Amino acid sequence: MIDAIIIGASGYTGFELLRLLALHPDVNVSSVTSRQYAGVSVTKVYPALAGYYDTLNFTDPKEIEGAKADVIFSALPHGVSQASVLPFIKAGIKVIDLSADFRLHDVEVYEKWYVEHKAPEYLKQAVYGLPELHREAIKGAQLVANPGCFPTGAILALAPVFGGGLYNSVMPVVIDSKSGTTGAGRKAAIETSFVEVNEGFKAYKIGAHRHAPEMAQELTALAGDEVPVTFTPHLLPVSRGILTTAYVWLKKPLNGALLHALYKEFYGAEPFVRVMEPGLLPDISQVRGSNYCDIGIYVHEKEQKAVIVSVIDNLVKGASGAAVQNMNLLFGFDESTGLTTLPLSI
Amino acid sequence: MIDAIIIGASGYTGFELLRLLALHPDVNVSSVTSRQYAGVSVTKVYPALAGYYDTLNFTDPKEIEGAKADVIFSALPHGVSQASVLPFIKAGIKVIDLSADFRLHDVEVYEKWYVEHKAPEYLKQAVYGLPELHREAIKGAQLVANPGCFPTGAILALAPVFGGGLYNSVMPVVIDSKSGTTGAGRKAAIETSFVEVNEGFKAYKIGAHRHAPEMAQELTALAGDEVPVTFTPHLLPVSRGILTTAYVWLKKPLNGALLHALYKEFYGAEPFVRVMEPGLLPDISQVRGSNYCDIGIYVHEKEQKAVIVSVIDNLVKGASGAAVQNMNLLFGFDESTGLTTLPLSI
Amino acid sequence: MIDAIIIGASGYTGFELLRLLALHPDVNVSSVTSRQYAGVSVTKVYPALAGYYDTLNFTDPKEIEGAKADVIFSALPHGVSQASVLPFIKAGIKVIDLSADFRLHDVEVYEKWYVEHKAPEYLKQAVYGLPELHREAIKGAQLVANPGCFPTGAILALAPVFGGGLYNSVMPVVIDSKSGTTGAGRKAAIETSFVEVNEGFKAYKIGAHRHAPEMAQELTALAGDEVPVTFTPHLLPVSRGILTTAYVWLKKPLNGALLHALYKEFYGAEPFVRVMEPGLLPDISQVRGSNYCDIGIYVHEKEQKAVIVSVIDNLVKGASGAAVQNMNLLFGFDESTGLTTLPLSI
Amino acid sequence: MIDAIIIGASGYTGFELLRLLALHPDVNVSSVTSRQYAGVSVTKVYPALAGYYDTLNFTDPKEIEGAKADVIFSALPHGVSQASVLPFIKAGIKVIDLSADFRLHDVEVYEKWYVEHKAPEYLKQAVYGLPELHREAIKGAQLVANPGCFPTGAILALAPVFGGGLYNSVMPVVIDSKSGTTGAGRKAAIETSFVEVNEGFKAYKIGAHRHAPEMAQELTALAGDEVPVTFTPHLLPVSRGILTTAYVWLKKPLNGALLHALYKEFYGAEPFVRVMEPGLLPDISQVRGSNYCDIGIYVHEKEQKAVIVSVIDNLVKGASGAAVQNMNLLFGFDESTGLTTLPLSI
Repeated sequence: MIDAIIIGASGYTGFELLRLLALHPDVNVSSVTSRQYAGVSVTKVYPALAGYYDTLNFTDPKEIEGAKADVIFSALPHGVSQASVLPFIKAGIKVIDLSADFRLHDVEVYEKWYVEHKAPEYLKQAVYGLPELHREAIKGAQLVANPGCFPTGAILALAPVFGGGLYNSVMPVVIDSKSGTTGAGRKAAIETSFVEVNEGFKAYKIGAHRHAPEMAQELTALAGDEVPVTFTPHLLPVSRGILTTAYVWLKKPLNGALLHALYKEFYGAEPFVRVMEPGLLPDISQVRGSNYCDIGIYVHEKEQKAVIVSVIDNLVKGASGAAVQNMNLLFGFDESTGLTTLPLSI
Repeated sequence: MIDAIIIGASGYTGFELLRLLALHPDVNVSSVTSRQYAGVSVTKVYPALAGYYDTLNFTDPKEIEGAKADVIFSALPHGVSQASVLPFIKAGIKVIDLSADFRLHDVEVYEKWYVEHKAPEYLKQAVYGLPELHREAIKGAQLVANPGCFPTGAILALAPVFGGGLYNSVMPVVIDSKSGTTGAGRKAAIETSFVEVNEGFKAYKIGAHRHAPEMAQELTALAGDEVPVTFTPHLLPVSRGILTTAYVWLKKPLNGALLHALYKEFYGAEPFVRVMEPGLLPDISQVRGSNYCDIGIYVHEKEQKAVIVSVIDNLVKGASGAAVQNMNLLFGFDESTGLTTLPLSI
Repeated sequence: MIDAIIIGASGYTGFELLRLLALHPDVNVSSVTSRQYAGVSVTKVYPALAGYYDTLNFTDPKEIEGAKADVIFSALPHGVSQASVLPFIKAGIKVIDLSADFRLHDVEVYEKWYVEHKAPEYLKQAVYGLPELHREAIKGAQLVANPGCFPTGAILALAPVFGGGLYNSVMPVVIDSKSGTTGAGRKAAIETSFVEVNEGFKAYKIGAHRHAPEMAQELTALAGDEVPVTFTPHLLPVSRGILTTAYVWLKKPLNGALLHALYKEFYGAEPFVRVMEPGLLPDISQVRGSNYCDIGIYVHEKEQKAVIVSVIDNLVKGASGAAVQNMNLLFGFDESTGLTTLPLSI
Repeated sequence: MIDAIIIGASGYTGFELLRLLALHPDVNVSSVTSRQYAGVSVTKVYPALAGYYDTLNFTDPKEIEGAKADVIFSALPHGVSQASVLPFIKAGIKVIDLSADFRLHDVEVYEKWYVEHKAPEYLKQAVYGLPELHREAIKGAQLVANPGCFPTGAILALAPVFGGGLYNSVMPVVIDSKSGTTGAGRKAAIETSFVEVNEGFKAYKIGAHRHAPEMAQELTALAGDEVPVTFTPHLLPVSRGILTTAYVWLKKPLNGALLHALYKEFYGAEPFVRVMEPGLLPDISQVRGSNYCDIGIYVHEKEQKAVIVSVIDNLVKGASGAAVQNMNLLFGFDESTGLTTLPLSI
């Protein structure tokens, strides 16, 4: 049994960590911090958790200074997270950072897209926490940078193409993603209020979303060559789920069955990637609440074009589920522990 | 052509007034005020209005001090509205107040449920702006208190029973209402954020909602005797619409056809009340965007019990549409002018 | 490890049984029948289940004639179910019937509301499967009649009042319920199509819903005296959840704290009833996907009136979760086995 | 005043024609046909229309054989529509066909994507009813082929690029579209039932959607050269609206302000195209219920790439509103008559 602390725990990824860890037999959540809710019981903020965390209150971050724990989950915003986790890293405690602070290896790229980095020396040491690409490195890491939600869906959709050297680099890579509203976090804002989002749909931050460099970093590493990414996020009027429609052109003609076989091979024993049969396409609902990434494949053989569709639950495989998967790897637990709940697809 | 000013215009009832008045041939909206958006163009806040109000900017309330206009619509919150409309009332300008400030005739009741009243002398003079009950008084009024959204649906559902002396006063009147989220106004708040409301449903403020005394006032006036109201509001995960399920017991046995006939007679020529055929029940969607109140009637003859279901669009018949209807009465326009748009039921 | 067969398994309650039983350590689902999908793999109809039931196909009901199993779940419609489960009952196999066929003890009442009963001799033997009221009887039963979704929410909301002799029988009991659309089952019909339900809300079958006599039967048994039930169901534009707002008048004045204490005592150790603190009211989202019934209590002491609000997930506590709970009781498993998944409240 | 007949009127586009034409001062709807609802009153099927079409019943198509009218709207499915409108065309009556039967000029293309064509001689004579491209031809037409919903959004998004000779033909054109569920029509089907669509999102018919050749036809005509189209439709859990995200690469570097100016010029006086200011992107909600197409423009100057986002209401500009606009052109009415209702954006 290990002790876990969640800092910045009052948001949706914090809730989701609590939801998942409640059923993890090897983890005890000893503290959860929240400036806003310090002193308030967890079940008051999240009545759904009644019966599971009845004695747990949010505490001010100050109260856990110097606290002992086996693992720290940081669900703080980028910029804030790096400073908050630093003392724990220095104390030798394993840290899983759900913010963007340690995802980009190149400090210049980070500072171009985000803010000044206060602990750039840890960027190289941090492991990008996508088990499907970096499982062994994660096992030995002290600091895991949990991937962004859009990058998770996009990279898993495209990794076999780029990792397999199939990409025609003359042509673009178009990543058109649609995310549920939990992706915007738990906050009071008119633009994420029910009335504004309901029955609506829009694109936003075209050419300006911070998750693009993360995709480029990982796809470039797979391809061994610079991959330009054209990325457009959209806001869906649903609570959970990201669907990514990725368009990529291939070096050589491949039919759908062949590309499907390559995907099946690439993801062979992965516990949380389900490659769908040729002709089938996934719906975000089929992974809701679960840690799965489901992938559908379409190939236009003559045009040497593939359209890959992936779906994840942005709060699970796109955030807290991946964090638990990484924790399982860090501590030698079975990788699926605490993550076996089936999708609540209807 | 008359000139209208809307104060507190940036919220949903303000938007709705603009939407409706854009098609009114006899009204020119000369100013719209908003502290928050002063200086911002209306179409920036509401892109839907592009092409209709391209030269109209929100102005600070100060800028309309002493302004001339034929009618003032106040879409300010209660408490604030009374002070803001007072100078206009004193200047002899007709005022339609969409807040609760002048709805209750009894200052004690107002102050029990709301706040201290600064202009109680106008409570008696104000006319409760439900044309189906007070048409003639509205025509001659200077100050119209536009009804609350829940009371509109509940009173229209029950008026024929109470007005017709059919109520068994030993038994309760249960008003179980369900409102779309625009009823909560346009604001940044976690509890009305998309994620909190979506796929949810809850009751709130049982026994403590400020619209209850308004229902009691009007039903009591109709009955000629004190009517106790048991009222529970609920929040629906839809944008628009209020459905009220009203339970009332009858003095004598009546069958459904008879009560239906009484409703048809009571609402005879009303332009915005549609009594449905016996056996049919309304859906909130069938009045969406329109000024209709549709009513369905169920009677259990043996138990001398009626269940009346009414639906309105809370922003139209429950707020801005009623305000335009009242304005038409005040200025002698045809009562339906500007209100002929059909429901967008799908 | 016991063997279970699900007949009529392709609908939503069938899916839900599969979802729950996949994580039950003591149950193996050996067969699932569906006339419509005979020969089709379960994961083709429900891609969410990929990885859990990869080798399971729906079979024609004929193929399980004479089959051996420890328990039969029937998710068939009423009328059809009674004939289908009869051979299994006669063969001594334990049966949990999710239809209405064995819920009403009185064959006349059944035949008034439903159809002719072909096996009325089993009505008396069947146990009404609400563990909170009939736990011991369920343990020893061979045939469990799983309660209806509306009755589950309504009875749990009101049982402490009626069981505690608090009801003022001069006054009515008003049960105003609102259900998500899964309650209508998995079917092709215009009235449950997305466009018709979305952004809509309506009452239906007032005075004519078949769940009313079920409520009356159980509340009458608790009260020891005939309880007349005024029941109105409504259709919510959400997938899962039933919220019941129950209005009841009390024999004597009680304040909220006292009634709350009586509810806490009544449901003391119940694993799946969570009575909320005074002043709090439940939202359907806080039980989504879980077997909980959460209850909020409002009392108007002077008027001797209580408004009780309960929420359940109609597919779990209102159907398949209750069925699993009953199965656990039938076979001596821990009552919560397979039902520990937390609510997916956001 | 002209007489109009709507054949195949019971679906959503039929409803929408009725909704719009109710406010058109120059049109009388004399008959509406529906095999399914023959003899049923229009207001029974659509209670929202009560008060507008109280005496209108659906009639069997046979009853209008040989009927006189000024214009026929066909809202029948493709394949069926061509045969049904032929007698009217031959009788010299103006026909606006909302099906796909006369949209494609090339019979081979039609028969490849649809079915055998029974009246191919009319393909050349029919005018593709997109006023923004073919206004003058529409005015003089007898047979107008009303455009498909996806093509309307996609063509309007891209016409200035292709019409302006800006397209880099080495690169692809990616059209990623997302449609509300009314696009699937009014029908009883599990895949469009509320529960299946709600909280879901999926791509479908990749590389196989029949609207792709329609886009190709019009964009090719504008470009003067074959335009290959990569088109992916998706299903949104909303009732109305199509958002199209179109990716196109430019022959030469252009900044956003320049491309914006070209769009403004291209659509100069168009009554129903609103080009948004640089930096702004449209939401489907801002055109709901209206005939507008709103367009947002993003340019990546260095990469010579543009992302154009358009929104329409699929039932209005994407179907029935366009049909009314075409009718106005055919009969010399002001082009906006009956189409001035503002968007119901919230």
